[in-house]
Amino acid sequence: MKILVTGAAGFIATNLIPRLLRNGDEVFGIDNFFLGKREYLAPLLEHPQFHFHEFDLLDLDRLAALIAEVKPDRVWHLCANSDISYGTKYTDFDLKGGTLVTYNVLESMRRAEVKEIIFSSSGAVYGEPTVMPTPEDYGPMLPISLYAASKLACEGLITAYAHNYDIRSWIFRFGNIVGPNPTHGVIHDFVLRLKDDPTYLKILGDGTQAKPYVHVEDCLDGMMFGHATARAMVNYYNLAVTDQTSVNEIKEWTFAAMGLDPKDVKVEYTGGSRGWRGDVAQVKLDTRKMTALGWTPKMSSAESTKRAIRETVEQFARR
Amino acid sequence: MKILVTGAAGFIATNLIPRLLRNGDEVFGIDNFFLGKREYLAPLLEHPQFHFHEFDLLDLDRLAALIAEVKPDRVWHLCANSDISYGTKYTDFDLKGGTLVTYNVLESMRRAEVKEIIFSSSGAVYGEPTVMPTPEDYGPMLPISLYAASKLACEGLITAYAHNYDIRSWIFRFGNIVGPNPTHGVIHDFVLRLKDDPTYLKILGDGTQAKPYVHVEDCLDGMMFGHATARAMVNYYNLAVTDQTSVNEIKEWTFAAMGLDPKDVKVEYTGGSRGWRGDVAQVKLDTRKMTALGWTPKMSSAESTKRAIRETVEQFARR
Repeated sequence: MKILVTGAAGFIATNLIPRLLRNGDEVFGIDNFFLGKREYLAPLLEHPQFHFHEFDLLDLDRLAALIAEVKPDRVWHLCANSDISYGTKYTDFDLKGGTLVTYNVLESMRRAEVKEIIFSSSGAVYGEPTVMPTPEDYGPMLPISLYAASKLACEGLITAYAHNYDIRSWIFRFGNIVGPNPTHGVIHDFVLRLKDDPTYLKILGDGTQAKPYVHVEDCLDGMMFGHATARAMVNYYNLAVTDQTSVNEIKEWTFAAMGLDPKDVKVEYTGGSRGWRGDVAQVKLDTRKMTALGWTPKMSSAESTKRAIRETVEQFARR
Repeated sequence: MKILVTGAAGFIATNLIPRLLRNGDEVFGIDNFFLGKREYLAPLLEHPQFHFHEFDLLDLDRLAALIAEVKPDRVWHLCANSDISYGTKYTDFDLKGGTLVTYNVLESMRRAEVKEIIFSSSGAVYGEPTVMPTPEDYGPMLPISLYAASKLACEGLITAYAHNYDIRSWIFRFGNIVGPNPTHGVIHDFVLRLKDDPTYLKILGDGTQAKPYVHVEDCLDGMMFGHATARAMVNYYNLAVTDQTSVNEIKEWTFAAMGLDPKDVKVEYTGGSRGWRGDVAQVKLDTRKMTALGWTPKMSSAESTKRAIRETVEQFARR
């Protein structure tokens, strides 16, 4: 199969692409290295079945030309702003890097008659739901960050394209995905900052924010299972675990993994229940739709988090 | 009060602006005349309290400069593509004229610290709901047209701006609004086409499509009542009536209003249950949230439709 992957140098894609190549797929990756990392992509570039194209997906002409030439069987559309608080400072960041880019991907697919898209959405689309764990059919959807607004906009574009142009779609609303090749997020930040200064850690909010953390290996298993099994025109699933991990737990486990004595680290909290203004502080996603489809994650949130901390400490120690 | 109105030459705005001027407001209108009509705007231009600016809202710099200069107390953001099937042919039409323009409006408001927005959304955001009448908290929201996808994207931008930048918002999800100064829609189309050729009428779909039709006077009453009464940061309401009117009923009532004998008109149906591929053929919106707030429309769907047909026939006869 020919598979096109957007955000190819990013966290999810650099974990996905080796799997696709092992499957025997021919993979076409695109990234502009705004958030993606050359060092994560480098090992893939040597593979003869992997073809990398460096450009910005806002360039519709270039994207449409590439998709028309390649005619992939499927698009894994994984590129996004993953640094949510950044989108509060630069208010057009998610609009351009999320919504407009997703339109460009769908429009290029329509023109070239590419018929399958797998999309990484987020549980953030539910805003601050009154029902927790939150099921997929929860309403109203009132996002509180521009990141979440963009994910909701992308989902709407995907469902409209599915209906009007027969593009089959798989939308996965992620919990917090963690694992090797992180580009952002609390584990990434804690490990990097403590490596720089092992005596001080600033924590956004009060540390009680708690979310379901999913290891990227489970995440990819789930997406691949979902794609193989769910066959509606629009398939949408929460992809999460049932337990939550708090920022304070991540702090403690990171200290332990780095061999730091908590007494030696001055911890400063910025305060308030949220990490930042558009942060959804408490997230629980209902995973029963995915379970009913026949898939459950292998690792709990605690297991995923601890493994990802270990992987991140090891990976950043090599730098 | 200083009020800024987008889509100032359009259907809703040209009915709204006379009310605002009668209230003593100073009104600043913007339109690019892509769908708005100069003839509908003309009578307003003579009013000393009305200031009209002709430009495209995609021009963020110009919009931001105007809003910074005027510092309106409130924005009625009414501009949109109202010709839904058009958005299927030109796939970036709703993205640009809906989503990007709404971002520009919100961003200009944020920069100038304008704190209130009233937005004309649509019941189309619910896609093809399994619950009818459909309440405001219905999920999942899976739009089936690019028009609806854009309305959903606009709502998400508005709720994110409300949360992050304290912009109070009123989102009204309309049924089909009808009345004087139409720019589009089934009544507009039937009257114009029968005026051109009273012996032939083409009907999209099979004519059984049925929706709640709301007269624009009721619509404006409801929006003004909602704005005055609902005071959350994000206020979202269906604005509709409880009965439905079918396209076939509109056909019959239009014949009657134009003095045509049905036997003299050859009616041709394009067939299928939908008017076009992204059309939601059966719409019923739950109006209980608006009723609980204290407001109900004066006219039923049948009354609204008959009155609007009469108004449209009279208005177009003068052309």
